[in-house]
Amino acid sequence: MVDTISFMHGTLLFWCPDRPGIVSAVSGHLYANGCTILHADQYSDPDTGLFYQRIAFESGDEAPDRDELTEGFAALAATQELDWRLSWSDQPKRVALLVSRQDHCLWDILLRRRWGELPCEIACVISNHEVTKDVAATFDVPFHVLPVDDGNRAEQEGRITELLAREQIQLGILARYMQILSPEFIEAAPCPLINIHHSFLPAFSGARPYHQARQRGVKFVGATAHYVTSELDAGPIIAQDVIRCSHLDSVEDLTCKGRDVERLVLARAVRWHLEDRILPGPGRVVVFE
Amino acid sequence: MVDTISFMHGTLLFWCPDRPGIVSAVSGHLYANGCTILHADQYSDPDTGLFYQRIAFESGDEAPDRDELTEGFAALAATQELDWRLSWSDQPKRVALLVSRQDHCLWDILLRRRWGELPCEIACVISNHEVTKDVAATFDVPFHVLPVDDGNRAEQEGRITELLAREQIQLGILARYMQILSPEFIEAAPCPLINIHHSFLPAFSGARPYHQARQRGVKFVGATAHYVTSELDAGPIIAQDVIRCSHLDSVEDLTCKGRDVERLVLARAVRWHLEDRILPGPGRVVVFE
Amino acid sequence: MVDTISFMHGTLLFWCPDRPGIVSAVSGHLYANGCTILHADQYSDPDTGLFYQRIAFESGDEAPDRDELTEGFAALAATQELDWRLSWSDQPKRVALLVSRQDHCLWDILLRRRWGELPCEIACVISNHEVTKDVAATFDVPFHVLPVDDGNRAEQEGRITELLAREQIQLGILARYMQILSPEFIEAAPCPLINIHHSFLPAFSGARPYHQARQRGVKFVGATAHYVTSELDAGPIIAQDVIRCSHLDSVEDLTCKGRDVERLVLARAVRWHLEDRILPGPGRVVVFE
Amino acid sequence: MVDTISFMHGTLLFWCPDRPGIVSAVSGHLYANGCTILHADQYSDPDTGLFYQRIAFESGDEAPDRDELTEGFAALAATQELDWRLSWSDQPKRVALLVSRQDHCLWDILLRRRWGELPCEIACVISNHEVTKDVAATFDVPFHVLPVDDGNRAEQEGRITELLAREQIQLGILARYMQILSPEFIEAAPCPLINIHHSFLPAFSGARPYHQARQRGVKFVGATAHYVTSELDAGPIIAQDVIRCSHLDSVEDLTCKGRDVERLVLARAVRWHLEDRILPGPGRVVVFE
Repeated sequence: MVDTISFMHGTLLFWCPDRPGIVSAVSGHLYANGCTILHADQYSDPDTGLFYQRIAFESGDEAPDRDELTEGFAALAATQELDWRLSWSDQPKRVALLVSRQDHCLWDILLRRRWGELPCEIACVISNHEVTKDVAATFDVPFHVLPVDDGNRAEQEGRITELLAREQIQLGILARYMQILSPEFIEAAPCPLINIHHSFLPAFSGARPYHQARQRGVKFVGATAHYVTSELDAGPIIAQDVIRCSHLDSVEDLTCKGRDVERLVLARAVRWHLEDRILPGPGRVVVFE
Repeated sequence: MVDTISFMHGTLLFWCPDRPGIVSAVSGHLYANGCTILHADQYSDPDTGLFYQRIAFESGDEAPDRDELTEGFAALAATQELDWRLSWSDQPKRVALLVSRQDHCLWDILLRRRWGELPCEIACVISNHEVTKDVAATFDVPFHVLPVDDGNRAEQEGRITELLAREQIQLGILARYMQILSPEFIEAAPCPLINIHHSFLPAFSGARPYHQARQRGVKFVGATAHYVTSELDAGPIIAQDVIRCSHLDSVEDLTCKGRDVERLVLARAVRWHLEDRILPGPGRVVVFE
Repeated sequence: MVDTISFMHGTLLFWCPDRPGIVSAVSGHLYANGCTILHADQYSDPDTGLFYQRIAFESGDEAPDRDELTEGFAALAATQELDWRLSWSDQPKRVALLVSRQDHCLWDILLRRRWGELPCEIACVISNHEVTKDVAATFDVPFHVLPVDDGNRAEQEGRITELLAREQIQLGILARYMQILSPEFIEAAPCPLINIHHSFLPAFSGARPYHQARQRGVKFVGATAHYVTSELDAGPIIAQDVIRCSHLDSVEDLTCKGRDVERLVLARAVRWHLEDRILPGPGRVVVFE
Repeated sequence: MVDTISFMHGTLLFWCPDRPGIVSAVSGHLYANGCTILHADQYSDPDTGLFYQRIAFESGDEAPDRDELTEGFAALAATQELDWRLSWSDQPKRVALLVSRQDHCLWDILLRRRWGELPCEIACVISNHEVTKDVAATFDVPFHVLPVDDGNRAEQEGRITELLAREQIQLGILARYMQILSPEFIEAAPCPLINIHHSFLPAFSGARPYHQARQRGVKFVGATAHYVTSELDAGPIIAQDVIRCSHLDSVEDLTCKGRDVERLVLARAVRWHLEDRILPGPGRVVVFE
């Protein structure tokens, strides 16, 4: 994939055991290759000894083309023993939305995309129900209905995997997809998956969280966006937020507040992923907001 | 206890199964007895069918004296089958503070008392260590040190109970008292106890919550103030709050943010109790802020 | 308007100079007329000496019909010199949305209506531009385009007034309507108007608030929902909220955060109005959340 | 000042017009001089074209001594045309607290210092009143009373300046110092000054802000910490925060909430200054939290 425009905006993520000279080596390499650093964030984790950096850069007229830059960086990474990821702003990620009956997160992501808040292409909506078909149609997004019941679970998951692969999806968003995905599916998924959890993890992780919250008299409802791992609802937390509540809030009021906070938190997590602001660590992620 | 001043400010709390006519009966009784309602809050819980009301009132020149008012209200409560509590603003509650080594909540309560934020008399500070003696002395509050170890736990708790009784304490504040109190002590305590929990319940309820929070990558630290019941850390929640954090926060930073939120939350809960804003319900409390 | 169903949910708002016996008189009247109080809030303003109450009630089988109840209450209000308003939950308010080019508040109100969060009928969308026509069509809401320029302002405003009257609108929502309305229009409007102000009043009240905020280095962006009065942006505040920001936020980021907080704040204010939770006071309003 | 310990923690702040190669030049220089970057933050302001960086570093065994490092960096800064500041963690800044009658911010700073939250030496408390003398004594901090009235203002300010200079104060904290300082004093002050403003700037900047806030019906009270410049209350904002309020809050309640938010905001700003997290920009500052 040869790039012919003269300015390219790239984002480089890398992580490695911390040691002297990494920042100097990488920034020196970029400078030597005609790239200007626009923004950089770094973090050295005192608990694990790992170093994380995100560099947004611009390559100028004299910079090598995209392939050459990538190869050059691969060579550096090999020498310095870095894990890394490189992306380009003119290649927005392809995204699939997975939903069930509730549509508030679906609307929210589609609207934010339209308003220019989310740099991505929404390739399709996948659902186990027909009900959100019109929402997808409003935004001219292809809609795939893949019903599921106890008899066809493995087969339905297989069709989702196939669809994600065929559409070259780079991020799957579980926008209130109310089916528990099998570890096999999660292992096989060709892209990372972000889920919105209807509660403030680690709390009230079972069913009917707003009923539980109300019975316990809590003063906040929350939501948590996290990457999906094969351990249910235990994947790395990306974003969380809370809304104040009181005994005056009925379960309906809490549900309504829940919708607000779920939308905000999911959108925030998706945006950070799309802008390559999230780096993987052991058990948790580092987010450069 | 005869009251001779002509104006008295009282606060009446009552709760009962909801049914028509309660508000009318109680407000009519107060009006007929020369009392003016200054402020009233009420709540009918759709889940339990219970009704809760708090009425702050002023008794004028023609009102009966305090004893007579109390008797009159007792008679009404018997007729209407109400649970109730009546208090007077010129009789601030007597409070004891229980602490261990950490002093941030202790300072905060003592300072707020001095600034006029907390309508109470701080009768004494009780600690299992000597270290906060000077803090108590700064505010001329009697200090009792009652060391505890595995060998003398029951005896030490007995001495605390005795002290609370002798000092006629009406509220015990566990301002970072780091001993687990026995169910026997809690049963026998002559006053309600408010505890500040160094976490956002129900979450990270074990040891070293800030380490747990950091490892899990949570985005908020919180604190919870609750009444003490014999089930550890499961008493009714009174107040909660949170402070935003990120991967940048070290355990020391989280601890520091924890101190801030603990102080705010404990002070809020104590104030609500002292102002008779909290009514007991099944499993949780109703707070009229 | 005769009501034939046996249970009616009503909301009574009243306000008057405070004096003894009001609560007793009103609650006694409701009880005597077969009505059960479901929820009540009251507030006595120490600054102005005014008393405010909101009572949600249910009329049972033996209650008089709606007309009779209303007449009875009118008589009581005359005796007690109360200002008052009475509404019924089976008569949701008719609402008009006024918008210009930006559609985020429009989508938000329409979606929340669909999700059952806002008890109202959305009678029409009125705009000075064509661009949001499809949004209205998505929800099958009539759309009226009334272009405006310096030459036809009075005439255009006249047509809006006429439309509001003809459609029997009870609340006009300025959902990012970017025209300054004349005092004459505001005086003549047949319904209250709620505006969402793209800033945290009283601050940055002029143009380009996010540029101003950024240049001043503020740490929060906010939004304010208020009733429209003839004094520009000085009407009583109904709801406000803020979102944290930093020097890292570009004007685009602040605008995006602004959209989030504008949607939340406008929806909250509209809901409170529709649920009859707002009582008028001198210079400000009392909101029983 | 020769440093003899083998490890030194330093913090380097620099800012300059942005151009390619700065990060590479500075990080390369540190690496070449035996220094390891512990943490770095940088920001390129798209509005002004200015670049800001903060680097926390550790110098190892083979690094030159502190003087040599400083000279080396001065030479680099001259070549690269950087503005810069360099500080060492074993040289905590000397601080003076200026107060009047209200003591809540004074207590808060003194307590946080004791708890290890603020890396500084509190050299003295300066007041125009006697009343906080005992507070200073509690922490064994020298107390200077310098009364002021309209007749001796210039002279009193002169004595403050002299005191700040003699005590080699590096930061003056106006912890509710209720005198308007003259532009002459501010110009002549030998150290930066941080003020806590009892309101959410730019709003209610005059007297009795909580009365104003209450009359306007605002939903939040706030506080702003800023550097003092000769233009009253218009210096660069460092930190802000808000606390939710409602019509239920009396002026006393708002004042109490104000104390809470003032303490939090002032402490945060002071901490950021002491940790060298604040870089000066045109009209505002950049804070690397």
